Amino acid sequence: MEYRIAALQFLPAFMDKAANLVKLEALLRALDADLAVVPELATTGYWFESREQLLSLSEGRDGAACTLFRDLALEHRMTVIAGFAERDGDRVYNAAAVATPDGALHVYRKTHLFAEEKDIFTPGDSGFQVIDCAGVRIGTMICYDWRFPESARTLALRGAQIIAHPSALVALPRLWQPVMRARSFENKVYTVTADRIGTETHGAASLTFHGCSQITDINGAVLAETDEVTEGWIAATVDPARTLDKSFSRYNDIFADRRPDCYEC
Amino acid sequence: MEYRIAALQFLPAFMDKAANLVKLEALLRALDADLAVVPELATTGYWFESREQLLSLSEGRDGAACTLFRDLALEHRMTVIAGFAERDGDRVYNAAAVATPDGALHVYRKTHLFAEEKDIFTPGDSGFQVIDCAGVRIGTMICYDWRFPESARTLALRGAQIIAHPSALVALPRLWQPVMRARSFENKVYTVTADRIGTETHGAASLTFHGCSQITDINGAVLAETDEVTEGWIAATVDPARTLDKSFSRYNDIFADRRPDCYEC
Repeated sequence: MEYRIAALQFLPAFMDKAANLVKLEALLRALDADLAVVPELATTGYWFESREQLLSLSEGRDGAACTLFRDLALEHRMTVIAGFAERDGDRVYNAAAVATPDGALHVYRKTHLFAEEKDIFTPGDSGFQVIDCAGVRIGTMICYDWRFPESARTLALRGAQIIAHPSALVALPRLWQPVMRARSFENKVYTVTADRIGTETHGAASLTFHGCSQITDINGAVLAETDEVTEGWIAATVDPARTLDKSFSRYNDIFADRRPDCYEC
Repeated sequence: MEYRIAALQFLPAFMDKAANLVKLEALLRALDADLAVVPELATTGYWFESREQLLSLSEGRDGAACTLFRDLALEHRMTVIAGFAERDGDRVYNAAAVATPDGALHVYRKTHLFAEEKDIFTPGDSGFQVIDCAGVRIGTMICYDWRFPESARTLALRGAQIIAHPSALVALPRLWQPVMRARSFENKVYTVTADRIGTETHGAASLTFHGCSQITDINGAVLAETDEVTEGWIAATVDPARTLDKSFSRYNDIFADRRPDCYEC
């Protein structure tokens, strides 16, 4: 099976959701892929100065962002996984919409919050979900979840063939890129890291996002990557069925060889 | 605290335990370090043709190999962690002796068996142990254990500051080296991979070991490494106390941030 996966390296306009949605719609309409992954908090920008600022831009699952992703997924028969700020009562989650080709919408809420996210977001309560997306099982984790091997492992054990990884990475690419290759290799899954670029400021302080979006093969090889500054899609054609067999010889299977009785969790 | 850690890249003579012990003794006596890590099955060689061949070379904890490692550890006030074939009744384990400066001997039995090891060894039942070695807590895993993030994670959660990794790697260095750097980074621990070199044969078939022994810092950087063919020590001076603080900012601590309720084990 040929399955086309793509990651959008994106520069959101900070606090300008309307402009971001217009731009995201154009970019998604121009893409020919089965799976499109869009960065963390792509609709709003990232570095909020206050919870009030964030509240004003967050929205429910029937809001403009999720509606756009769901409509485009249905219209183009693709899966769209995109970061947004999800409002649920008084709480706001750093979330990813998972819009599938059949018009369904699921939401992953980031499990591990990074830095000042802890001041404004509620820790995710969705757990690591694997969604059947027109026959391909896709799991989602967001940005800092990468640092915990349990995130990708849990998704893989739950059947993920592809791990979508919307991100706004401030860690240097030389740190997270090889670790994401390890996540592929140790789980025999594809990974798609869609990272953002650009700099956001609070007065004199600034935060730079380093891009370098990356798609990895099940053996940890890089299928596609880009630089720290270029906006646009990277893509690769993969065969999700290759992830079903976790063996690499007649003796060894990286899942059957596991010894959970020996593991601390 | 300055703590000197070393990995021996070694070429064992296949099936010649006496010669290997003489050579290992000379190499260990010539070393000035607090921790010496010696490859998997360094005393016997690796690629046994039969269980009978292996049985003839395996030994108990009072055998020549463990006695040598214990005596040298006590005499030189260092910790020696070295691979050997452990006999226990009818069973043989792919094991590592952990000989501490106070003269104690512990044994780790390999948890995840690789390839034809499954035909001749019994899967380890020791679990992942962390041993207090004169005030530094050291965990041991053997070779293929590297591929399972749970191995290093379990050792780190149990307090390991340094992970000793006796190996006889047939996987290519480009695969396991970056993953071992990830193991350091995701757990904030030092790792010491002592790999063997050389080729062993069964008739026309051969098995080559690729060396490239490696010592990593708690941030995943390489402190020492070597090539695919050179026998000898690599070493680095580290501060084990640096591993005690798992935070990297006032917001984030890679252990406190874990969400075990969300993990599949």
